[in-house]
Amino acid sequence: MLGRSRRLCGSWGASRSRRGSGPTELQMTAARTSAAIPHSREAQSSITGAVPSRTRGPPPLSVPVRVSPGGAAPGRGRGRGSARLGPARPGMLLRVRSAVSHLVAGLGPGPGAQPPAEPRHGGGGGSGTGGEEGSRAAAFCRPAFLQLTPEELRRADDHTGRAVQSPRDGRRRLPWSTGYAEVINAGKSQHNEDQACCEVVFVERRPSPRGHLPCRDGSGEPDRSRKGFYFHYWALFDGHAGSGAAVMASKRLHLHICEQLRDLVDILQDPSPPPICLQHDAELSQAEESGEVPSDALPRFHLEKAVSHESLVIGAIENAFKRMDEQIEQERASQHISGGCCALAAVYLMGKFYVANAGDSRAIIIRNGEIIPMSREFTPETERQRLQFLAFLRPELLGKEFTHLEFPRRIQPKELGKKMLYRDQSMNGWAYKKIEEDDLKFPLIYGEGKKARVMATIGVTRGLGDHDLKVFSSNIHIKPFLSCFPEVRVYDLTQYEHCPDDVLVLGTDGLWDVTNDKEVASVVMEVLTSYEPNDPCRYTMVAQELVVRSRGVLKERGWRLPNDKLGSGDDISVFVIPLGGPGNYM
Amino acid sequence: MLGRSRRLCGSWGASRSRRGSGPTELQMTAARTSAAIPHSREAQSSITGAVPSRTRGPPPLSVPVRVSPGGAAPGRGRGRGSARLGPARPGMLLRVRSAVSHLVAGLGPGPGAQPPAEPRHGGGGGSGTGGEEGSRAAAFCRPAFLQLTPEELRRADDHTGRAVQSPRDGRRRLPWSTGYAEVINAGKSQHNEDQACCEVVFVERRPSPRGHLPCRDGSGEPDRSRKGFYFHYWALFDGHAGSGAAVMASKRLHLHICEQLRDLVDILQDPSPPPICLQHDAELSQAEESGEVPSDALPRFHLEKAVSHESLVIGAIENAFKRMDEQIEQERASQHISGGCCALAAVYLMGKFYVANAGDSRAIIIRNGEIIPMSREFTPETERQRLQFLAFLRPELLGKEFTHLEFPRRIQPKELGKKMLYRDQSMNGWAYKKIEEDDLKFPLIYGEGKKARVMATIGVTRGLGDHDLKVFSSNIHIKPFLSCFPEVRVYDLTQYEHCPDDVLVLGTDGLWDVTNDKEVASVVMEVLTSYEPNDPCRYTMVAQELVVRSRGVLKERGWRLPNDKLGSGDDISVFVIPLGGPGNYM
Repeated sequence: MLGRSRRLCGSWGASRSRRGSGPTELQMTAARTSAAIPHSREAQSSITGAVPSRTRGPPPLSVPVRVSPGGAAPGRGRGRGSARLGPARPGMLLRVRSAVSHLVAGLGPGPGAQPPAEPRHGGGGGSGTGGEEGSRAAAFCRPAFLQLTPEELRRADDHTGRAVQSPRDGRRRLPWSTGYAEVINAGKSQHNEDQACCEVVFVERRPSPRGHLPCRDGSGEPDRSRKGFYFHYWALFDGHAGSGAAVMASKRLHLHICEQLRDLVDILQDPSPPPICLQHDAELSQAEESGEVPSDALPRFHLEKAVSHESLVIGAIENAFKRMDEQIEQERASQHISGGCCALAAVYLMGKFYVANAGDSRAIIIRNGEIIPMSREFTPETERQRLQFLAFLRPELLGKEFTHLEFPRRIQPKELGKKMLYRDQSMNGWAYKKIEEDDLKFPLIYGEGKKARVMATIGVTRGLGDHDLKVFSSNIHIKPFLSCFPEVRVYDLTQYEHCPDDVLVLGTDGLWDVTNDKEVASVVMEVLTSYEPNDPCRYTMVAQELVVRSRGVLKERGWRLPNDKLGSGDDISVFVIPLGGPGNYM
Repeated sequence: MLGRSRRLCGSWGASRSRRGSGPTELQMTAARTSAAIPHSREAQSSITGAVPSRTRGPPPLSVPVRVSPGGAAPGRGRGRGSARLGPARPGMLLRVRSAVSHLVAGLGPGPGAQPPAEPRHGGGGGSGTGGEEGSRAAAFCRPAFLQLTPEELRRADDHTGRAVQSPRDGRRRLPWSTGYAEVINAGKSQHNEDQACCEVVFVERRPSPRGHLPCRDGSGEPDRSRKGFYFHYWALFDGHAGSGAAVMASKRLHLHICEQLRDLVDILQDPSPPPICLQHDAELSQAEESGEVPSDALPRFHLEKAVSHESLVIGAIENAFKRMDEQIEQERASQHISGGCCALAAVYLMGKFYVANAGDSRAIIIRNGEIIPMSREFTPETERQRLQFLAFLRPELLGKEFTHLEFPRRIQPKELGKKMLYRDQSMNGWAYKKIEEDDLKFPLIYGEGKKARVMATIGVTRGLGDHDLKVFSSNIHIKPFLSCFPEVRVYDLTQYEHCPDDVLVLGTDGLWDVTNDKEVASVVMEVLTSYEPNDPCRYTMVAQELVVRSRGVLKERGWRLPNDKLGSGDDISVFVIPLGGPGNYM
C-alpha cells in the first residue's frame, strides 16, 4: 500500500520523497497534469517488454521496465494541499503540516523519535536483500517461495523498473498451481511493503498432558491414527510505515492459525457437534481417564446453543490474528518492528475456504463468470460508526484534540453559532446542528474515499501492528481505534462443481485502487481462455497480467493505464488460486 | 408483541397470567403437547366464520371467533422452565425466578414498585375504550382511523374472540386505499399493545425569525410560493410492559418527523446540493439579508463531502425518533407512560419511501412477485456485537452481575477451570477458554432466537421508551443497551413502473413470528388476484387475510394454523400499502 504517503496523513498536504530530495506532491501533481502524448497499447508492450499474455508458453519471469530516475510515478494525492485547509486549531494544523514531511515516506513519527530500524537487507525465511540482519523475524525480505537470487532481489527492489515478480518456472511450484505476481511501488517507500505467504501446514494434535490422547466417544480408547490434518494457506500483508509488521506476520500468522487449530484436531474430524465444555487439560478427571464420563457425555443443558465446526475454525482464525498482533506488540522492540499491516488470509480446510480480512485488501471468487465477494474493506468510512461509538464512549481517547462528530468539512472558528451538517455514531443520515466550541476540534474521521483518515493519521481501521502509532506530535494513540480482528467469510468448495477457470483472487489495494471486480474478472477470463486448461502456468499468467494492468506502463507522465489514467504507484501483490480442474487440491 | 411474557424475562421459567390465576406456562406447555385431532382447513373456516378471501365484494369488517375463556392461547415459551437452569449465582437465579411472576404479565417491575398506571379506558386521538382518562396522550385507545364505536371497541378488546379489525367500509378510507388489519393477543396483556398511525402530514416552512424567508439563490428574493410539502406516513408501534409508550408514539412520532423536516422545506425543494453550513437563525448577517452573500455562496471548501437530499431526510427521521424517545422520557411521569415499544414507520416523500425500523417489526416490498426487504430486526442476537462492545467498554453498566462474554449455555460453578466455548465483542466464531470466576456471572446476552434476552430482561434492542426498565430487583438499567435510533432504508418509487399488485407490507412481530416473507408474498398475490385491480378494498382484504392466517383459528388446543402449529398469540397489526395503480398517490 502507499504507506504513509497514502494511509498515513496522506490527505494532509504536500509530501516529499523518502530521502527528502524529490519533488513535493503538489509539484508532482502539477507535473502530472502537463500535456503528453499517450502511447498506444502496442507501444506500451514494447516499453514494458512484457510477453503478450495471449501467447502460450512459459510465463515471463519478470516484466522489467527501464525508465529515467525522474520518471518515477508520483503518489496519488490529486489536488491535495494544506493551503486550502482551515482547521480551527492552529496548533493542530501546525502539527499536522509538520507531520507531513516526517510521516509520508516512512521516516518515523517525528524528529524527536527514533527512525524505524528497518533493515535494508535480510533473510530469515524469505529472500532477503542480502546483508547482516537475516536472522531477525522482521528483517526485510521477499516471499520465500519466490526463491530470488541476489541479482533478482535487486531487480525486484528497483522502483524505476518495477519488474513484475513471480515464482520462477522450473523451481518449486506453488500448491494447486497457484498464480502469484507482485511489483514494487513507484518510489513511495524504500522497499516493497507488501508481503506474501503460501504454505501447506500440518496441524498436529496436541499431546495429552498425561501422555495419552483425549477421547470423545466414551470408549476410553483414543484413536491414534488421527494425529492431525493439513490446511492450505495463502496470505497477503500490506505494510505501512515500515515493513516490519508485514514481514513478521507473513512468517508467523499461519503458525498462529496452526496453534489455534491444534486443540480442535479431534473435534473437527468428528462429525458430531463440538462439545460445549471440555475438561481442562490439567484436570482430566479420573472418571474420564477410565472412559466412564467422556467430556461430551455430560447431560445436555437446557438452552444450549448449537455451535458448528465451521464457527470453531472462524474463531481459531480470529484468535490467531489476535495472537499475531500481541506477538508483534511484545517483540516490536527486540525485533525492531516498525509500522503495521493489513492482512488478508485464505485458509482451505476440509472442503471450505475461510477468507479472513483485516484491512483494505480484497478477495473475490470468480466462478463461471460470476463474481462472489469474499471480503470487505475496513476503512474510516466503512467503520465510521464503530469508531465514533468508541470515541463517544471513551472520549479520553481523543485527547481533547478531536471530536467524535463527523462534519462534511472543517469548521472555521468564525462559523461558531451557525448551523452545519453533522452526524454522530447513531446516524446514517445528516442533520444540521448549531456549531459549538467543541465542534471546532478536529474530526475523528476526516476525508473521503482513499483520503479518509482516523485522527488525521491512518486510512485503514483493521490490521496488525501499529502499537506505537500516535497522532503526530501528541501522546494520542491510534491503536484503540484499530482492530486486529478480521472478518472471516466462508466458501464451501463442495457445494459447487468448479471448472479450471474458477478462481479465488486475493489482491492488495495496489491492485484494487485502479480496477474493480468486474475488470479483474474480465482479465481472468480473457487470460485463462488463452491457455490450455491443464497448463499449470495459466494462473501465474493471470496474476502477472492483473499486476501489469494495474501498474500500467511508464510514459513521460508516469505510469499510465491504457485509458491514460494514472496506474497504481503502490506496491501490488496478487494471488490467483484455482478452485477446480486438473492439478489442483494437491 | 408478546410483552413481558415474550420479550421481558420470557425465557426465565414459568409464567403466570395477568391476574395470577391462570395456569403456569409449564402447565400450558404440557397441555399443548397433549394429543388432539387436527381440524381440516375447511373446518377452520367454519370456526372462524371468516369470509373466504377469494370472494369478491366488500371486506368483512371483522372476523369474530367465539371460544370458551379457558381456551385462550398460551404464550409461546416452548419447553421453558427454571428447573433446568443452573445459574452460577443463586442470588441472581432467585431474583430472576422471582421476577417472572411479576414481570410476565405487565404487573410492573416488582413488589416494591408502583404498578404501571395504565388506564383501562381512554381516548385522546384514538378510539378509546371509554372512560375518564381520554385527555392523556398515552391513554389507551385504538388507532383513530379505525373510528371504532364503543361497542366495536369492546369487541376489539376481546381476547377470546380475537376479532380482526379494519377500517370500516363507508367510513373514511386510508390514503392510497391502504389496507390495514389488526387483532388483539390471546390474553397475554389486558389490551392490544400494538398501535398504528396513518396520516398525510403537511410540513410548513418555518418562518424566518426576522419575518422573511431564507433565500438561497443569491437574488435576495425569497420564493413565497413554496411554503411547504406533504408527506404520507404509516407506522406500527408494538408495545411491551404497558401500552403507554406505543400509544404516545403513535400520536406524536409523525409530528416529530414534521418538525425535523420544517428546516428542510426549501432545501429539499431545491435541486442543487444542500448547503453544508447555514447561517444561524439568530445571526443572519446583514450581508445575507441584503442578498449579497447567501449562505451557500460561501467559497466551497477543499475536501467537502457531498451530502444528498435523501440523507437529510434520513437524518430528520433518525432525529425524530430521538426526540420522540426524549419526549417519552420527559413526560413518562406526568403522562403515566409505562413500558416501551418497537417502532416501524414508512414515510413517502418526493417519490421515495423511507422505511425506518427500531425493533423487531418488519417491512417488505413485494414487486412483481419479488421480495425486497425494507428492514431488519434488532434483537439481542442481531445486535450482539454492539451490546457486547458497549458492555466491554463500560463494564459498570453490568453492575457486577453480568459478563459481556457469550457462552453457549450457563456455566456451573463446578465447571471452573474447564474449557468452554465463548465469544466476545470482536468475534463471530467460537473458541474455547478456561472458565474463570468472572465467567460465572450471568451472560449479557442469553437465549436463542425469540428467547434471546439482554440481561435476562428484554428481547428487543431498539425502540422507544423503557426509561425505567431495570434488571429485576436491581438498580441495573437496561436503557443504555437499548437504542432509539432506527435503521432507515430508502426505496425510490420513481425507478420502476409499479403495477397495482406491488405493495409495501408492514407487520409487527405477531405477524412474522409464524410466517415468513415468502408466505406473505404468496398470500398477497393470491388475494390481490382475486379482486379487480381497481377495487379499493383489495388491500384491506390482503391485510385481513394476513392477520387471520397468522392468528389461526381456535381449536381445542388453542389458536392453530392450517399446519396445526400454534398460531400467533401475540397482537398482530399489518399495513398493506399499494405502490402503483389506479387510486394511488392521492
